[in-house]
Amino acid sequence: MSAVRIGVIGAGNMGADHVSTLHRFVSGAEVTLVADVDRERADAVASTVPGARATDDAHALIADPGVDAVVIASHDSTHADLAIAAVRAGKPVMCEKPLAPTTRECVRVVRAEQQAGGGLISLGFMRRFDPAYMELKAAVAAGACGSPLLLHCISRGVSSSPGCTDEFSVTGSAIHEFDTVPWLLDSPITEVSWHAALTTSAVTGLRDPQLMLLRTADGALTTVETFLNAGYGYDIRCEIAGERGTLALANPARLVADADRARSTTYPADWRPRFADAYRLELQAWTDAVAQQQPSPLATAHDGLTACAVAEAVITSMKNGGRTIDVEVPEV
Amino acid sequence: MSAVRIGVIGAGNMGADHVSTLHRFVSGAEVTLVADVDRERADAVASTVPGARATDDAHALIADPGVDAVVIASHDSTHADLAIAAVRAGKPVMCEKPLAPTTRECVRVVRAEQQAGGGLISLGFMRRFDPAYMELKAAVAAGACGSPLLLHCISRGVSSSPGCTDEFSVTGSAIHEFDTVPWLLDSPITEVSWHAALTTSAVTGLRDPQLMLLRTADGALTTVETFLNAGYGYDIRCEIAGERGTLALANPARLVADADRARSTTYPADWRPRFADAYRLELQAWTDAVAQQQPSPLATAHDGLTACAVAEAVITSMKNGGRTIDVEVPEV
Amino acid sequence: MSAVRIGVIGAGNMGADHVSTLHRFVSGAEVTLVADVDRERADAVASTVPGARATDDAHALIADPGVDAVVIASHDSTHADLAIAAVRAGKPVMCEKPLAPTTRECVRVVRAEQQAGGGLISLGFMRRFDPAYMELKAAVAAGACGSPLLLHCISRGVSSSPGCTDEFSVTGSAIHEFDTVPWLLDSPITEVSWHAALTTSAVTGLRDPQLMLLRTADGALTTVETFLNAGYGYDIRCEIAGERGTLALANPARLVADADRARSTTYPADWRPRFADAYRLELQAWTDAVAQQQPSPLATAHDGLTACAVAEAVITSMKNGGRTIDVEVPEV
Amino acid sequence: MSAVRIGVIGAGNMGADHVSTLHRFVSGAEVTLVADVDRERADAVASTVPGARATDDAHALIADPGVDAVVIASHDSTHADLAIAAVRAGKPVMCEKPLAPTTRECVRVVRAEQQAGGGLISLGFMRRFDPAYMELKAAVAAGACGSPLLLHCISRGVSSSPGCTDEFSVTGSAIHEFDTVPWLLDSPITEVSWHAALTTSAVTGLRDPQLMLLRTADGALTTVETFLNAGYGYDIRCEIAGERGTLALANPARLVADADRARSTTYPADWRPRFADAYRLELQAWTDAVAQQQPSPLATAHDGLTACAVAEAVITSMKNGGRTIDVEVPEV
Repeated sequence: MSAVRIGVIGAGNMGADHVSTLHRFVSGAEVTLVADVDRERADAVASTVPGARATDDAHALIADPGVDAVVIASHDSTHADLAIAAVRAGKPVMCEKPLAPTTRECVRVVRAEQQAGGGLISLGFMRRFDPAYMELKAAVAAGACGSPLLLHCISRGVSSSPGCTDEFSVTGSAIHEFDTVPWLLDSPITEVSWHAALTTSAVTGLRDPQLMLLRTADGALTTVETFLNAGYGYDIRCEIAGERGTLALANPARLVADADRARSTTYPADWRPRFADAYRLELQAWTDAVAQQQPSPLATAHDGLTACAVAEAVITSMKNGGRTIDVEVPEV
Repeated sequence: MSAVRIGVIGAGNMGADHVSTLHRFVSGAEVTLVADVDRERADAVASTVPGARATDDAHALIADPGVDAVVIASHDSTHADLAIAAVRAGKPVMCEKPLAPTTRECVRVVRAEQQAGGGLISLGFMRRFDPAYMELKAAVAAGACGSPLLLHCISRGVSSSPGCTDEFSVTGSAIHEFDTVPWLLDSPITEVSWHAALTTSAVTGLRDPQLMLLRTADGALTTVETFLNAGYGYDIRCEIAGERGTLALANPARLVADADRARSTTYPADWRPRFADAYRLELQAWTDAVAQQQPSPLATAHDGLTACAVAEAVITSMKNGGRTIDVEVPEV
Repeated sequence: MSAVRIGVIGAGNMGADHVSTLHRFVSGAEVTLVADVDRERADAVASTVPGARATDDAHALIADPGVDAVVIASHDSTHADLAIAAVRAGKPVMCEKPLAPTTRECVRVVRAEQQAGGGLISLGFMRRFDPAYMELKAAVAAGACGSPLLLHCISRGVSSSPGCTDEFSVTGSAIHEFDTVPWLLDSPITEVSWHAALTTSAVTGLRDPQLMLLRTADGALTTVETFLNAGYGYDIRCEIAGERGTLALANPARLVADADRARSTTYPADWRPRFADAYRLELQAWTDAVAQQQPSPLATAHDGLTACAVAEAVITSMKNGGRTIDVEVPEV
Repeated sequence: MSAVRIGVIGAGNMGADHVSTLHRFVSGAEVTLVADVDRERADAVASTVPGARATDDAHALIADPGVDAVVIASHDSTHADLAIAAVRAGKPVMCEKPLAPTTRECVRVVRAEQQAGGGLISLGFMRRFDPAYMELKAAVAAGACGSPLLLHCISRGVSSSPGCTDEFSVTGSAIHEFDTVPWLLDSPITEVSWHAALTTSAVTGLRDPQLMLLRTADGALTTVETFLNAGYGYDIRCEIAGERGTLALANPARLVADADRARSTTYPADWRPRFADAYRLELQAWTDAVAQQQPSPLATAHDGLTACAVAEAVITSMKNGGRTIDVEVPEV
């Protein structure tokens, strides 16, 4: 069976990580082409893979006969158009989240995919492939905690990027929960509300941390904390309290150290060490599906649309004093 | 220095525990009289302390010349009247929470105490004497996590009592948080809202678990989960996320066991093992203050009024679709 | 019931701690007299207890009619003579470990106690009253791990005192395990061997850490690590592996903190915070036994003799290249 | 770059796992041939890989022109001869541990490899590729705990196989520590002793658990517990106590559950889930080295000889009452 020839659009951190993972750790994948608007950056990343070429033209990459399937890891604003171009070219595409910044644009992508026959777009909600989240979902499905009633999700990072807005906490961070929670519970989010500490960071000008409440169709209630400037480390938590008990992600640290009057484990500085295995398994699953012409087990374009609709509802709540807002996912 | 002679009103679980703790473990305390409307129960508890007498008349206990100070652990509905009787008799009193079921009645008690010269009533918010909570408060005050921004409090129990109402989750369980959070942050609760999973337990007829949001004057936001029928055990958690890091109560289990493919620690079935030390230290601190005629370091009647006002605001929110309600503490 | 009037010999750290614990936290105890060869130190400690007197004459304290029972917390070398004086005076005595530096002297004390009718000496192996060790013993006895086969005991401290010798690691630190292990297993230690890393600390001139192997009559094997200069904190561990599982002491920290890329709990600098509750419960149990003229539930003089015999066997092994040595407890 | 064509000898659990891992998760590897003395078993495993063939002749597999490199996962007794055949055929080989049952045979293999020019044999001490062990080694090397002084290694399993002998606890289980400890410390094991609880399992007829002491050239002392019938789960622990602190493997569980009065994490039933990632990374590193004609980063044949020599010394101690035995590695 010959390898799936993959073109990667975007040679920033995320794109470079994907190229490295595909090349070094994904069975049956071959990176053949790397595109970036910054041609030098594309060259640098392509040079890490024997035989790979570089371009500054993403559309040329999509059209290239040496590319069987496309990974989109370029700027968020480009995802929709590139995904549409890929499906029009009939090529499977693994697009980093978000699918698009607005539900309107997400709808446009979903429609384009439908017109191309469907099933071509996979969305990079990588938590679905994190071994700990997979165990959590399996345990919930097996009834280990009984019917889920209350979930507590926490996403903390070291510091926000310059220019970060209040909305980014929702669209860039909490959006992972908007996909993960319905996936874990097998039940869509129906209403949301947004709350924040009054304290506004003097340094960042942001409302941070933020707290959101999500209600799913099964009646469960979820609290989501996003804290971009938590300072101490990158820390993702999830606990599900059900009728018979609870299930939670364990601290993923591999070492315990005793020193200086303390027993400690460490946190990574960002998401990459925490989710390296999730990215690998996601890309492996996607490559396998492409190779075997099977349906992709990744999140779909419609999942991306749904998460975007939840984010929009949360931002509406943010702008309306924390009012409870119904989530409306456009029919496509 | 002669011992403080203590009369205990109420010979149920709580009262019997207090008698045992005072007799066995509190230096300088002597239980001399036990009162209960059920005289046999009073006799049974009194018989565990050499020299202690029993009565079915709480007011006689308060008036008894062999009683220097009074512990009230009778039915909640009796607390206010008995506390007032004790202060009118000029005797220090340690009253179990709640001070009274309504702010109106709390005000009546606070006024009676003021008329008696003040400083006679201590309220049994025992978490203030739990060594873990004390360490937590000290660490916050020392700046270990920076300014607190977000708190997560969880109170879970095995099962609710028969006849338990939605309101009891607030007045009987969450009320501890209404005292603990302002005490930890040194900042009063100013507004609240109430939220619950739609799921109503088929077994209990209760809305359980419940989720409440509290905002304190310092701008911090607190989530409070109460889950009376969590099933798995009695479990109290508290985490404070601040500008520089977090602080949380550790799991208080003393043993770790490996068996049957699992590594585990155990939970108690109710609050008594969890807070036995807190009760002991609270009663010791109160006894010392009485003996030395110093101000009591326990929560005051006014603290009880404040917690009651928060509970009333939460119940107002509960009855008004989760609307955010300002907390109004009557001026006394 | 009137209080037990206690005289405390020794006003150093340990003695001052005992005076404070007895006065502040032990029900039914009254410290009436404090002795120390340094009269000023005795005065200072006595002044913390209303009504307590001071002396520089330990034997006068023992003879004092205002002293019902004696606590010995003076220099190790004085324990045997003072314990003998107390039993000859017919007074119950709680002697800090060790009972005496040699089995020869321990035998002398045990004989003196026998001649006085027995049952007067309690020995301060406080771990028997530590709530975690008590739970561990109860769980073993309840069969939670099946028959114990292998134990791992670790005692680590921050740094050794100046002038500390290799032998002190055995007689001052491991001696706690020599009492705890047979108490946990209900089986005496029958043979021992001593092992150490070749590395000798340049700073301390000690062989540290040390490793000892103990075999008990039930066939179980115990590893004992003593590490006086572990640097990071005071850390006591114990795990029992049995036929059906394991049981171990949990980390006793009360708080968990996130900061600076780490999740951590703290260690105390020395044994006092770790075993404060054990000392309190030990003194309470002893006071209760004295007051009620019941047999003391503390370790006995004979337990002290036994632990001393184990220590001597370990030191014999230390001086003989780690050879396995039979433990011989003199018949008394 | 074309894939490395791999032939796998042995279609039992270990061999089938390797085939699955190579096929599904190793980039650049292609399983082309599977050999087993049981042809049906070979067929069954080969059928899981499109294009792979099967044979019952291991030597034919080694000689096959469609095989670039060989994995040996057949019965332990066959390892030496097959490894020699592979190196004589000039093919890189990844041989499961042990290299051979005796140092004598190990020497024969090492000599055969030397005659073939060296560098062809890699040995499957997979712990070197376990992410937690890799972090541990890196932290030690970075000085995180100061100079290592004392190590505690524990290997526990659910139950031993029928026919298991006392020696197997050393050659089949502790042998991993004989490789891991010198690798972690960068210092060879120089002397050993063996100790066991007197208790002999009525069920298994084995001396189990066993305790071994290892001394490395750097002066550090290591305790090794092997407990084949620990019952509760597969559990591997390692703690290093150094001059400035300790480092230890964290519990690798991914979920924490609350239920039935307990907080718990689970243990796997055997080594495969625990070390799945180690095997994958080991096979990836080996495949990369073969493809790039670089030296293999895996353990070498000489490492296998060394571990075997340690095992023989331990067994000598076992048969001589626990005497301390010097490790002698034959010069080759």
